[in-house]
Amino acid sequence: MNNPGYLIIGGGGHAAALAEILIKQNKPLLGVVAPDILAGHAIFDSIQHYLRDDDILRFSVEKVLLVNGIGAMPRQTLRKKVFTRFSELGYTFATVIADSALVSDYAVLAEGAQIMNNAVISIGCNIGENTIINTSVSVDHDCIIGAHSHLAPGSTLSGQVKVENSVHIATGVSVINNVTIGTNSIIGVGANVTKSVNAKSIVYGARSIIKGSVKNDN
Amino acid sequence: MNNPGYLIIGGGGHAAALAEILIKQNKPLLGVVAPDILAGHAIFDSIQHYLRDDDILRFSVEKVLLVNGIGAMPRQTLRKKVFTRFSELGYTFATVIADSALVSDYAVLAEGAQIMNNAVISIGCNIGENTIINTSVSVDHDCIIGAHSHLAPGSTLSGQVKVENSVHIATGVSVINNVTIGTNSIIGVGANVTKSVNAKSIVYGARSIIKGSVKNDN
Amino acid sequence: MNNPGYLIIGGGGHAAALAEILIKQNKPLLGVVAPDILAGHAIFDSIQHYLRDDDILRFSVEKVLLVNGIGAMPRQTLRKKVFTRFSELGYTFATVIADSALVSDYAVLAEGAQIMNNAVISIGCNIGENTIINTSVSVDHDCIIGAHSHLAPGSTLSGQVKVENSVHIATGVSVINNVTIGTNSIIGVGANVTKSVNAKSIVYGARSIIKGSVKNDN
Repeated sequence: MNNPGYLIIGGGGHAAALAEILIKQNKPLLGVVAPDILAGHAIFDSIQHYLRDDDILRFSVEKVLLVNGIGAMPRQTLRKKVFTRFSELGYTFATVIADSALVSDYAVLAEGAQIMNNAVISIGCNIGENTIINTSVSVDHDCIIGAHSHLAPGSTLSGQVKVENSVHIATGVSVINNVTIGTNSIIGVGANVTKSVNAKSIVYGARSIIKGSVKNDN
Repeated sequence: MNNPGYLIIGGGGHAAALAEILIKQNKPLLGVVAPDILAGHAIFDSIQHYLRDDDILRFSVEKVLLVNGIGAMPRQTLRKKVFTRFSELGYTFATVIADSALVSDYAVLAEGAQIMNNAVISIGCNIGENTIINTSVSVDHDCIIGAHSHLAPGSTLSGQVKVENSVHIATGVSVINNVTIGTNSIIGVGANVTKSVNAKSIVYGARSIIKGSVKNDN
Repeated sequence: MNNPGYLIIGGGGHAAALAEILIKQNKPLLGVVAPDILAGHAIFDSIQHYLRDDDILRFSVEKVLLVNGIGAMPRQTLRKKVFTRFSELGYTFATVIADSALVSDYAVLAEGAQIMNNAVISIGCNIGENTIINTSVSVDHDCIIGAHSHLAPGSTLSGQVKVENSVHIATGVSVINNVTIGTNSIIGVGANVTKSVNAKSIVYGARSIIKGSVKNDN
């Protein structure tokens, strides 16, 4: 595609973060598609606003790259549905790599993978389509991450971890090496994963405990 | 202020880290104000050493930017007191952003905010005055952080977190999105915060457990 | 040593990650020494492959820098043995710093220390020989790390932490300031370390809990 324009789907914080990454890379933003703009007004107020997903159909599949700005939350399927629908219609989703991210020359990113600020993708990794590697995530060597998954901010995978499709790994999770996390699993905030988990598992990290209160103001 | 000089208050490790950041940016260091120099001798031994806070008064408010090098520890109020006293006297505290930090063009930093090495401040964030965002901290989109707070190294905030004033978030803490942490709260090392906490809360992360000892030397 | 060549020992993921770092820095790779190549084929398939450690002896100590690509796992001593054997034979191990790492101008790295991608070594730190500071690790000011230790990906040390020799700090560990971790200790994945631990301690972080399973596919 020569000089494609970028069309962002979604009007929340993830969409805004993607928009800033693309602006820094001088990508032309053709518009934002969302019923409401909930974040990133400083960016979105100056570009064309489309209200309905069907407005995407006004753009030729030859001239536009879609950017899936819908955030990935556990049990929410909208992000995947949008990707699937418009892929089947012939559209291409942009693979986005923030300038501040580090992606090995020997890693492979599928269509629509999004590597956010300060994330690291090490040598030998494979990132599936429509997957988000969020801010400050660290993915060590030879990890295989499936499609439609989300590694939330600050999570860390050691080497040779396998994450299957549609997995949600929450903020601050740590996974040791050589572990597999099965399809559709949800790994909760700050969980320490030391062995493989089956598909559809829900894994909770340790709860924090509220112990009394601070006596003196400061 | 044209070509201000920088005066660092404090002689410990945080002061030294700030000094290195400023030196890399070719900021002129006028001196360090501290009863004792406890760290950073390689830097501080070559600049003027002032022993008492009152020595700051020798400098014109028009020509100096103060750098609050006093570390932020739970229940210790010295850092805030110094900021308040000299602000009231008309001094300005420098807002410091390490070259290796990433601050969104669409984030707002108040006076005296300090963004240390490898930290990320995402789009839509607001960082209060005299607050430290420490080394390798990740603050996702649309977080609002109050004044006089401290996010210790390696802590992670997901999107739309609100941290009120004078909060201490310790090393390695993970906070999910849309949570509020009330004024004066202390969030302990590695705590996983999954819901809002009231003002003055003390939240502990999971304890680690010592289990036996390693049998063979290596 | 003028224009030394680099000889990588080990054929797994850590070796591959080191190889990529060195290639980016235009260091000449003379070969890889390993019974089997298990990772990094895109790099290693194009350089000379030596099968036995004794093949290293073909190279003059004056012309080669060794790169210890053997990963550091708890209770495994091979990495240290290789370092010790070839050091005693007069070989020099390269100190490797990834371009994306940040090492303070006021930190000291011993021979053979390896600072991997996106790691931070702050002012006043001292890193011992043959120690790995792995991907996205954050080491704050004035930490002293011994020899033959490993800080696994995403671990965080606050200021003034002392880590003695041959310590393994696993993925995602958080350590508060002013703590000492004794020789040969193993700190498990995601552990929150809030006080000093004796030599040979085994410290476990909080276990995660599997709670039911996700009901609906997404």
